[in-house]
Amino acid sequence: MTTDETYMKRAVYLAALAKGRTSPNPMVGAVIVKNGRIIGEGYHHQAGGPHAEVNAINSADEPVKGATMYVTLEPCSHYGRTPPCSDLIIDKKLKRVVVAALDPNPIVSGNGIERIRNAGIEVVTGVLEEESRKLNEVFNYYITTKKPFVVMKYAMTLDGKIATETGESKWISSDASRNHAHHLRGHLSGIMVGIGTVLKDDPRLTCRVDGLTQPLRIVVDSRLKIPMDARVLTEQDKAETLILTTEQAPSANKEALENRGVTVKIVKESDGHVDLEEAMRIIGEYGVDSLLLEGGGTLNAAALKAGIVHKLSVYIAPKLLGGAEAISPVMGHGVQHMSDAYKAKSVEITRIEDDLHIEAYIDRSEQ
Amino acid sequence: MTTDETYMKRAVYLAALAKGRTSPNPMVGAVIVKNGRIIGEGYHHQAGGPHAEVNAINSADEPVKGATMYVTLEPCSHYGRTPPCSDLIIDKKLKRVVVAALDPNPIVSGNGIERIRNAGIEVVTGVLEEESRKLNEVFNYYITTKKPFVVMKYAMTLDGKIATETGESKWISSDASRNHAHHLRGHLSGIMVGIGTVLKDDPRLTCRVDGLTQPLRIVVDSRLKIPMDARVLTEQDKAETLILTTEQAPSANKEALENRGVTVKIVKESDGHVDLEEAMRIIGEYGVDSLLLEGGGTLNAAALKAGIVHKLSVYIAPKLLGGAEAISPVMGHGVQHMSDAYKAKSVEITRIEDDLHIEAYIDRSEQ
Repeated sequence: MTTDETYMKRAVYLAALAKGRTSPNPMVGAVIVKNGRIIGEGYHHQAGGPHAEVNAINSADEPVKGATMYVTLEPCSHYGRTPPCSDLIIDKKLKRVVVAALDPNPIVSGNGIERIRNAGIEVVTGVLEEESRKLNEVFNYYITTKKPFVVMKYAMTLDGKIATETGESKWISSDASRNHAHHLRGHLSGIMVGIGTVLKDDPRLTCRVDGLTQPLRIVVDSRLKIPMDARVLTEQDKAETLILTTEQAPSANKEALENRGVTVKIVKESDGHVDLEEAMRIIGEYGVDSLLLEGGGTLNAAALKAGIVHKLSVYIAPKLLGGAEAISPVMGHGVQHMSDAYKAKSVEITRIEDDLHIEAYIDRSEQ
Repeated sequence: MTTDETYMKRAVYLAALAKGRTSPNPMVGAVIVKNGRIIGEGYHHQAGGPHAEVNAINSADEPVKGATMYVTLEPCSHYGRTPPCSDLIIDKKLKRVVVAALDPNPIVSGNGIERIRNAGIEVVTGVLEEESRKLNEVFNYYITTKKPFVVMKYAMTLDGKIATETGESKWISSDASRNHAHHLRGHLSGIMVGIGTVLKDDPRLTCRVDGLTQPLRIVVDSRLKIPMDARVLTEQDKAETLILTTEQAPSANKEALENRGVTVKIVKESDGHVDLEEAMRIIGEYGVDSLLLEGGGTLNAAALKAGIVHKLSVYIAPKLLGGAEAISPVMGHGVQHMSDAYKAKSVEITRIEDDLHIEAYIDRSEQ
């Protein structure tokens, strides 16, 4: 690891401290180094607050003039809620700026760096670029498409089951894995299930972790079959719910839901169901930049088919259930031929106590 | 790691060089150290050949008198195909013997060590004991039960499927994983499938790796439905086949198979099918100490239920197939309640190119 990479690693670490709190902004970290010593550092804590560069400069314990700044994302060049960081860097006479990734935001990309370079400051880019991009995978996708980055999450046994053949699904994974999944809920801004899951499991879809934000609860319910006492409709003061349906749904049901303060949105149909591509556009309009897809199997299959899934978050519990009738995580209509399989790439495995957690990305280059 | 552990690690490494070749004997490695230098080392290459201790002593480049021997398994004390190693160690006046695990063979266990101790030689036991036991998990089980150690093997997708909904199963896993699985076949002495797999996939069940032994091919076929042109019945000169059936099978089918040189064994029934516990006893009588269970789903379920499975070898390919009708690795009748799940322990994960390979042990303490 080069010296630049070592300091950038620290900046990436700082950026990640705000995980789940910066939406709709990216996570950014910055470290200022002078004479081989870190003299200041900071990160962007939350939308509306100062940028990482400002926090780093303000924290410096000696003048930053002549120092090197390591920043995980290109400094901004536009007036948003705060003045442009590129101007601040120029004003404070930093000598060198090392950047991990360019800002994918079309109103920034490349401009921030150009501004700084034009002021005679040395700029290096691409240091730990991949780490920085991954950190902001949600932001990078949303800022360019205005649609949410979708993570499909499920827990299965080592023989691929999400419930026993009698339908018992509590619990496949361990307490620790379920706690991990709750953090995942809090790190994304929306959580989506199909009506089948609501009818079967009646989940609350709340994030029960202190300090994390409650995601918007979204139910795909093409015929508005949701019962008025479903848990996902309660606690509207704490957690909002958006129901996506079609023209086929009875208007009386729509009114009853709206009277409860639930937002019901009619989406165009595809094969008699909510068109999921269109749904993503609508969800994006609500400011939801990231979506945790928690099934069930029918919605998972439709989501894969619609090409809206970006990432997989799979918990595998070290147990076997067996059963020809026991259900597996992706049901519906599957692919017909092995060559048409949805491929996952960049697979990463971690252990959560006795469970395994697998993260991977759907290879969209083949879709 | 202590000095003793360092040398024992080398002995374990040497022992494992004979993987798949020592049956019905255990794998054993030995290292002889004098004045901080390895002066000789060896391992047991194959049944009938010299023991590890003999090979190590013969390889020594200076007299072994006064040296320390590290050996992964307790030296034998009985006359088998070769004279007792414990006597050789005493004769050669070694000063110290470090042993990983006691011999589980009831006619040896503890006697070898006692004999050496009684001759005034220092004996240390239990150094890297777990590694040594794991190395010989097959031998340890078979020597005490005369039944095979069973490894259930399957390859599935990240959504728990072993075929598409149209039945395509070629191929779930990568070339590298399938090559890995072929080595597994060669390391075990039997390979077993159900009649469903023969009818559907018509496998050859041969080990296509040079230098490894062909395991006995075993088909569980309660009604003798196997077609006479099944591939598992061909090449009887290269690979033998044992068919396990019940009294219910037509005797004409049995005769036809026997005329082809295939061994057909009638096993007592359990729920109208071959009783798998009894089958294990019979397979053990054929000298098969280890069995690779390659499915399909119905036999896998029955094997788990019968409690004959010891280890899992699961390949997970980074792809998704979906499909409510797509089959998963363990079918049949599953468990009814989550609390009755078969639990796996000591989970180990390795990557085989883009696939994951998971090894784990069925927790038999709860059965």
